Amino acid sequence: MAVREYGHDVTLVGDPAALKPLLEDSRRGRGRLRVPAAEAKRLHEKIHVEVATQVVGMDETPLEAIRKKKGASICVAFDLLKQGRVDAVASAGNSGATLAAAVKSLGRLKNIARPGIAGIFPTLQQPLVMMDVGANVDCRPNHLFQFAVMGAAFSQIQFGIESPRIGLLSIGEEGGKGNALVKQTHELLKQSNLNYIGNVEGKDTFQGNVDVIVCDGFVGNVCLKLSEGLAEAMVAMLRDEIAKNIKSKVGYLLTRDAFSNFKKRTDYAEYGGAPLLGCNGAGIICHGRSNALAIKNAVRVGAELVRSRINDRITAMLDGSRHLQILDEKVAEATGVPIP
Amino acid sequence: MAVREYGHDVTLVGDPAALKPLLEDSRRGRGRLRVPAAEAKRLHEKIHVEVATQVVGMDETPLEAIRKKKGASICVAFDLLKQGRVDAVASAGNSGATLAAAVKSLGRLKNIARPGIAGIFPTLQQPLVMMDVGANVDCRPNHLFQFAVMGAAFSQIQFGIESPRIGLLSIGEEGGKGNALVKQTHELLKQSNLNYIGNVEGKDTFQGNVDVIVCDGFVGNVCLKLSEGLAEAMVAMLRDEIAKNIKSKVGYLLTRDAFSNFKKRTDYAEYGGAPLLGCNGAGIICHGRSNALAIKNAVRVGAELVRSRINDRITAMLDGSRHLQILDEKVAEATGVPIP
Repeated sequence: MAVREYGHDVTLVGDPAALKPLLEDSRRGRGRLRVPAAEAKRLHEKIHVEVATQVVGMDETPLEAIRKKKGASICVAFDLLKQGRVDAVASAGNSGATLAAAVKSLGRLKNIARPGIAGIFPTLQQPLVMMDVGANVDCRPNHLFQFAVMGAAFSQIQFGIESPRIGLLSIGEEGGKGNALVKQTHELLKQSNLNYIGNVEGKDTFQGNVDVIVCDGFVGNVCLKLSEGLAEAMVAMLRDEIAKNIKSKVGYLLTRDAFSNFKKRTDYAEYGGAPLLGCNGAGIICHGRSNALAIKNAVRVGAELVRSRINDRITAMLDGSRHLQILDEKVAEATGVPIP
Repeated sequence: MAVREYGHDVTLVGDPAALKPLLEDSRRGRGRLRVPAAEAKRLHEKIHVEVATQVVGMDETPLEAIRKKKGASICVAFDLLKQGRVDAVASAGNSGATLAAAVKSLGRLKNIARPGIAGIFPTLQQPLVMMDVGANVDCRPNHLFQFAVMGAAFSQIQFGIESPRIGLLSIGEEGGKGNALVKQTHELLKQSNLNYIGNVEGKDTFQGNVDVIVCDGFVGNVCLKLSEGLAEAMVAMLRDEIAKNIKSKVGYLLTRDAFSNFKKRTDYAEYGGAPLLGCNGAGIICHGRSNALAIKNAVRVGAELVRSRINDRITAMLDGSRHLQILDEKVAEATGVPIP
């Protein structure tokens, strides 16, 4: 699907024995993408396989797994990127291991202390970027400031927003509200040249009045999973109620298109995956339950990250505000709020 | 509504000039509750007014406002509770001020370091209690342990769950996952005699497989507001899609009952408000947008807190696990995770 739609070369990294039957089917025009055999053959010239002999399981401790399993598919994939043989890596595997392998193989961008994951949320208007959604659980204000820069760069290239409105996730709109981390980060962002609109609350997330929401990876990950869980539960509750009588069942048939459009609008698969930003290279962290559509879109997002030179953009933005990087201690002093 | 339905005496605290016209209307059987004048008169014998000359605004700093405005309605209300002239206080005003006034007038329960707010979430099964949802932004493991005890006591009395399943909100199910606060709290809860089921993730929140979710007030408040915002946005998006063509509009008419049942199932007003637990007395923090139904239900919840002697229950539960209260430092030592 990705090769046909975008024309990119795609390299599959994994166990050849597992990949072979799938590739055979696909080459013959069978499999998921039903195309004439001639076209299938042509498409397959752009599909490559690189052997990986090991796998990092979903429950393994990321750092340990990466250290022990040099032949794991995720390590092989990022090594290919480091060698310049691929331009971006997408993975639906253990996300901690993806992060660890990326940092190990690629290294961090200049002035980035902590690479992070940018989650994408649907809203009533354009999609929203939330960063970090899981890479860093205990953060300092500087880390959040860097998330703001990276999130803004991604919002620019992915959604074409020239000057993304950046909000700091808190529990009240006034700058004085929040925990120690948020209060300090507020001071840092206020002094930056970013389009910082101040604190935002969870209820603003889905209204479309903010483009980038900054938070630590613990809070961001909770938000991501909570939203997913609530969306599923709401649909289940509604289905429950509709199934209770024949009249509403008929009504459901009539509204089915609306429901499926709605589903499409809120489907994570449409966004492909969450970019891992802050490394010397492009990584995409896909949902563990990714379907073919999600992986195809992840290939698109990866290509866009590379083509738009997002890393050069991030570095330039940080170079312009490097003086803020050393402000942590000063802010602590000025606000009387200790560094968390 | 509350007087008629529950038979409780209700005391309104506020500006008599503002209350008088509303009470006059209601006494004549006009106003929201349309009952025969004779019944209205009888009900009004159970409605009392206490004068308060000041108001804490929604944007005021809680502690400062409470200190300066001794005549504010929220201060007068909790003073009435302290004097034994009322049994519980419900407020839809500034929630920080409600918390501050409660702590100031009533004091904290024995062995409770930080009173907290217990939020109620609808799930696919029985409702879920999340604590704390906004009273305490920077917490220590001991505080979270106390939230677990208070949340469990509330789940018992409000939803009749004998041994509530307690989960710790984190970003992975294994005990080793989460931020420093969560890792430490995990160790404390494991050693307790509570029905602790381990870490839970945001996606578990709405499934109904956990009865009490423990988290710090920053994360809990974000979750509360995010859920509210997402639920509203989802309904708006669905309405959007349905309005796009006539077929689905007709379908909507047929499913309207299902939608309204669904709305009832997820309406915060059905729960009345979030109990403030950990003070020597019962307080209910209502949503700033509370309607009559929400306030009526808040009266019910307040009465249930008092009748069930929830505070005695909390004290007894904490007495039985007091040895855990001093474990903070030991846990820090054992896990190598410093106290946040």
